Amino acid sequence: MPEPIIDLRSDTVTRPTAAMLEAMFRAPVGDDVYEEDPTVRELEATAAAQFGLEAGLFCPSGTMTNQIAIKAQTEPLAEVICEQTAHVYLWEVGGIAFHSGASTALLPGDRGRISAAQVEAAIRPANNVHYPDTRLVCLENTSNRGGGSCYSLESIQQIAEVTRRHGLSLHLDGARVYNALVATGQSAQEYGEYFDSISVCLSKGLGAPVGSVLLGSKALIQKSKRIRKVMGGGMRQAGYLAAAGLYALEHNVARLADDHRRAQQLSTVLQNQPYVAEVLPVETNLVIFRLTDEMSPKAFLEHLEEQGIRASSFGPQMIRFVTHLDIDDAMVARIETALAAVPVAAVGA
Amino acid sequence: MPEPIIDLRSDTVTRPTAAMLEAMFRAPVGDDVYEEDPTVRELEATAAAQFGLEAGLFCPSGTMTNQIAIKAQTEPLAEVICEQTAHVYLWEVGGIAFHSGASTALLPGDRGRISAAQVEAAIRPANNVHYPDTRLVCLENTSNRGGGSCYSLESIQQIAEVTRRHGLSLHLDGARVYNALVATGQSAQEYGEYFDSISVCLSKGLGAPVGSVLLGSKALIQKSKRIRKVMGGGMRQAGYLAAAGLYALEHNVARLADDHRRAQQLSTVLQNQPYVAEVLPVETNLVIFRLTDEMSPKAFLEHLEEQGIRASSFGPQMIRFVTHLDIDDAMVARIETALAAVPVAAVGA
Amino acid sequence: MPEPIIDLRSDTVTRPTAAMLEAMFRAPVGDDVYEEDPTVRELEATAAAQFGLEAGLFCPSGTMTNQIAIKAQTEPLAEVICEQTAHVYLWEVGGIAFHSGASTALLPGDRGRISAAQVEAAIRPANNVHYPDTRLVCLENTSNRGGGSCYSLESIQQIAEVTRRHGLSLHLDGARVYNALVATGQSAQEYGEYFDSISVCLSKGLGAPVGSVLLGSKALIQKSKRIRKVMGGGMRQAGYLAAAGLYALEHNVARLADDHRRAQQLSTVLQNQPYVAEVLPVETNLVIFRLTDEMSPKAFLEHLEEQGIRASSFGPQMIRFVTHLDIDDAMVARIETALAAVPVAAVGA
Amino acid sequence: MPEPIIDLRSDTVTRPTAAMLEAMFRAPVGDDVYEEDPTVRELEATAAAQFGLEAGLFCPSGTMTNQIAIKAQTEPLAEVICEQTAHVYLWEVGGIAFHSGASTALLPGDRGRISAAQVEAAIRPANNVHYPDTRLVCLENTSNRGGGSCYSLESIQQIAEVTRRHGLSLHLDGARVYNALVATGQSAQEYGEYFDSISVCLSKGLGAPVGSVLLGSKALIQKSKRIRKVMGGGMRQAGYLAAAGLYALEHNVARLADDHRRAQQLSTVLQNQPYVAEVLPVETNLVIFRLTDEMSPKAFLEHLEEQGIRASSFGPQMIRFVTHLDIDDAMVARIETALAAVPVAAVGA
Repeated sequence: MPEPIIDLRSDTVTRPTAAMLEAMFRAPVGDDVYEEDPTVRELEATAAAQFGLEAGLFCPSGTMTNQIAIKAQTEPLAEVICEQTAHVYLWEVGGIAFHSGASTALLPGDRGRISAAQVEAAIRPANNVHYPDTRLVCLENTSNRGGGSCYSLESIQQIAEVTRRHGLSLHLDGARVYNALVATGQSAQEYGEYFDSISVCLSKGLGAPVGSVLLGSKALIQKSKRIRKVMGGGMRQAGYLAAAGLYALEHNVARLADDHRRAQQLSTVLQNQPYVAEVLPVETNLVIFRLTDEMSPKAFLEHLEEQGIRASSFGPQMIRFVTHLDIDDAMVARIETALAAVPVAAVGA
Repeated sequence: MPEPIIDLRSDTVTRPTAAMLEAMFRAPVGDDVYEEDPTVRELEATAAAQFGLEAGLFCPSGTMTNQIAIKAQTEPLAEVICEQTAHVYLWEVGGIAFHSGASTALLPGDRGRISAAQVEAAIRPANNVHYPDTRLVCLENTSNRGGGSCYSLESIQQIAEVTRRHGLSLHLDGARVYNALVATGQSAQEYGEYFDSISVCLSKGLGAPVGSVLLGSKALIQKSKRIRKVMGGGMRQAGYLAAAGLYALEHNVARLADDHRRAQQLSTVLQNQPYVAEVLPVETNLVIFRLTDEMSPKAFLEHLEEQGIRASSFGPQMIRFVTHLDIDDAMVARIETALAAVPVAAVGA
Repeated sequence: MPEPIIDLRSDTVTRPTAAMLEAMFRAPVGDDVYEEDPTVRELEATAAAQFGLEAGLFCPSGTMTNQIAIKAQTEPLAEVICEQTAHVYLWEVGGIAFHSGASTALLPGDRGRISAAQVEAAIRPANNVHYPDTRLVCLENTSNRGGGSCYSLESIQQIAEVTRRHGLSLHLDGARVYNALVATGQSAQEYGEYFDSISVCLSKGLGAPVGSVLLGSKALIQKSKRIRKVMGGGMRQAGYLAAAGLYALEHNVARLADDHRRAQQLSTVLQNQPYVAEVLPVETNLVIFRLTDEMSPKAFLEHLEEQGIRASSFGPQMIRFVTHLDIDDAMVARIETALAAVPVAAVGA
Repeated sequence: MPEPIIDLRSDTVTRPTAAMLEAMFRAPVGDDVYEEDPTVRELEATAAAQFGLEAGLFCPSGTMTNQIAIKAQTEPLAEVICEQTAHVYLWEVGGIAFHSGASTALLPGDRGRISAAQVEAAIRPANNVHYPDTRLVCLENTSNRGGGSCYSLESIQQIAEVTRRHGLSLHLDGARVYNALVATGQSAQEYGEYFDSISVCLSKGLGAPVGSVLLGSKALIQKSKRIRKVMGGGMRQAGYLAAAGLYALEHNVARLADDHRRAQQLSTVLQNQPYVAEVLPVETNLVIFRLTDEMSPKAFLEHLEEQGIRASSFGPQMIRFVTHLDIDDAMVARIETALAAVPVAAVGA
């Protein structure tokens, strides 16, 4: 029997376990466009309660929850402040302009994280008709492009202080927020005090097949339902998907610590390879590293592929490894062996 | 044991049968954002082949497939021609303006159906900067607001002749296109000759829990993938949902004839009730009727509700019944009894 | 010396008189983007005061003032109610969708005029996520497509009562509002009580070369300035144009009665021609008539052109004549002669 | 008689000379919406010919010509590349997102100028649905925020080589392009070889009261007319404004060298003041300088104001002086005196 493929490209590639599938099967469902799917409603209420917010909205993707949050909290001619590599700006197809007609003020962050001082300096002067109207700040925690880096609670508090003082909304792209919570020991409850809206993904580290939940006040979620409808996110018997999310919230959060440990282990191995120029500090489940100029990324990835290991190019000379539910210790050992065996011949290929 | 609720509000309320559920949970899945979910790909290819088109795109809703088709085949400052009660205009939250920045030319149809002559007369003169640029015609078959009415193939051919002569695209909102095919005996294959894009819903009469498929040329579907992404319709292990669609295409199409027969039966009963002023001709599974001015719609629906029967208000004095997979002959008999017993006291309530 | 061209195509074709030019020349100007052009400010204040509204905003066209008013009083996913041939819908390039992302509910009017009952019936039910959110009603007075028809004050009052009760805004496209005021004897002051925004054109019957003024509350005009800026309507030393508007408000309003009298005269002549099937009732300066099926519009317009008279095609078999500042009684006599001499040979050409 | 105000805030504040006014009011005019204004057509043709492009379009502002060019050369889901302080991004109210639904890739430039290598690196990979579609590059010459810096022709050539190789359009925001041409001795003709569209402002250094011209191919200008219409830029007898532009092109270009000389003179004086920390290199008519931390910008500007001199704050501790048609040598002498007399007391105020 061939060894299984090791897929380090993303934590989105996980397939449900038998137990999660069983939970999906058994879920009671209804027509969620009529707000009659009990499993969807339970998921929305559960996630909202965890983060101390009033209400939730289940959607087919994190791009949708992020873009709904931005649309609901801006009008055209508004401006959104975010880090210059934020997922909402960089990997959502320019959705901020497309859906919301809003401009973006892009800040250079520290591994994807911006500071309260940066935010405050980026707010446009009011009453000058040349400028868009700053309305919303988006944070991403953990930061994907920043290599899984986490915000400190203090930093979040300071930014929230600025946004409130200026009457701005504060959104969290929490695609991997559970990784941040597990890594830092922060409490989800506290997040609800600082953020006006939070997008939580179920289909990344948590291992559910499909879906994200947008969290916020009742009024925000009510407004968001109409936006979800126009975007085509109103699903019928979505409870099968929601059941996987509920299962994941119960069973797959604490175990993220294992993913983090394995990412650390890979980081250590990588630092010892002659063809690795730099490994970004590893805080959670993302390992981003830069190959030396002599090593061809294409040859490097091909070598891994031959060993049944998949990873992603992540910018010039940059590679990303992601640990997740489907990567176990035996696989980490296989990866270590493969990394040690990267042929010198690959250099310059 | 209480009798089951009879839900005539919509054919979207159906729950998967045990066999469909079994098919869902046996489905092989993968990350469809990486185009690696085999079940999604099979569904897309199957539906495309049925309609004689090159490619398909699985989406979470018919609103999304319709709006993507409109967006992909227009630019801002374009105009879309459709019937004045078309779902794309009336019940998709103004999405034509929102997503596509396009104007709408609204035609008064014959129970939701427009003619080639009407379409041709509605095309704006080119080279006049005051007008938007007519780019797309949308038909709906069967027409929801028109009471499930079907287009003749001849009428479709004539409209396609006009759109091609003027360089316009032709889209079919096929939310209930299988009802039309079964009722008229038309061939799905032929549709691909006339339409540039077709949206097919799996979660209405076909009984799948979630999803629609957009069909078109390879180039159109390629373009549509980016639009689906920005709208948040890119799902991960969506194969569980797609499997239900595949099952439905195989097992639940021919049986739509039963829904149509039951709708006819209800129509006959309704025509004999003193409180019914008019029943729209029934061609498929929708029964739309108008109460006499003396009958309060609210009282009428409450009476049905007391008998465990749900239906929808559908405009002033108008009521809609929808037959579907979860309505059997015994239920039709119960509905007949309930209709015969609507109290005179309800009048004027 | 050849006789001057008689241009009945539109009241936009007028050229300033010597006295108006003189007023333009003498105007004090400044940089209006810095709000320092005294003539622009005087024009804005004068027009606002006439209509009993707080503030005004000078713009390069009536399309801009209308579209700014719509944008400022809606958000995307809103719906605008107007007559189905309204200028804002029909001749502004689909701007409602383009600029505002708003849907349009189109009502069939009585020569361009809609009623309070129609408006109320068109308001979408709140709290149904399938519908856009009705926010704004636009009236056009006089109605261009309706042949210069005027609203009664009673009708305006009734519509305003509906919009206020439902929390909607009410906009007046007053491209030819001075024609309406002169024809009906209504007071401009009263308009300010009913409308939230009014667009007044200076370059139609009033004879100024360029410009329109948007009127409304201070808050609305403040918001509109940013929208004018993004649309590119912020002009620098615009006082030269504003001076013409100020001159027109003082000298060219009362004389509109002459244009109306001449339009009546032309209507009478047209009614007696064998090739005219119908003349719409003439209330102001627009004369719209339908040729008999035997008369080719092309041949008819060519005959007039040969006599130095220009007019516009206005739909199938329809022709529009517009009287204005540059049409005097001698010209009307020439037109009468030309109409009487339309050759029978033109028939069927 | 008091000395005249010296307005260094912008070159937009100039008022027409008597000769320009004379030219304006002698201008033959017509209805430009019907394309019948001979002066507008002459201006459009003249400007197009100067830059070796096919056609021109007169608009009320440079914001409109820029935004039309962007709209005409992108579709929603596109991306525009520009310098991070470009006028089109920073001072046009987020119009790129608002009008075009396009995202922006922002590059850090050398005093507002970007390089071909930067442009090439910013082009998004095709066929990745996560990214917007790079379509357009915008340059600004001279760069406003860069202190009036000029592109070399070589740099323009290199960027054009990249945009053509990748199938992108190249737009020039030429708000002050005549300053660049006069300062560098470059030929306008050559610009037409490299740029697909050029926006030229008449109301800045050239001294006309209102207006800009968009230049490009016939097809681009044809498309742009519909966009101008929807934006409300279709003006009627606009020839009065166009005449000022024609006069300016004939009489006010060569004299920009005087403005540049005076800006140099002011730069030299500023460099010798103890309260000036830094003066940006002066290439044309903009002088941007930074005050020392001890000098309050507010106190500095108030001191100048008391001497009848106006200037603008331009970021933290930054001040901008602009020389133009209404600033003569005597005024420069007055400014020098005022700068020398800035009181030490102002420090720390």
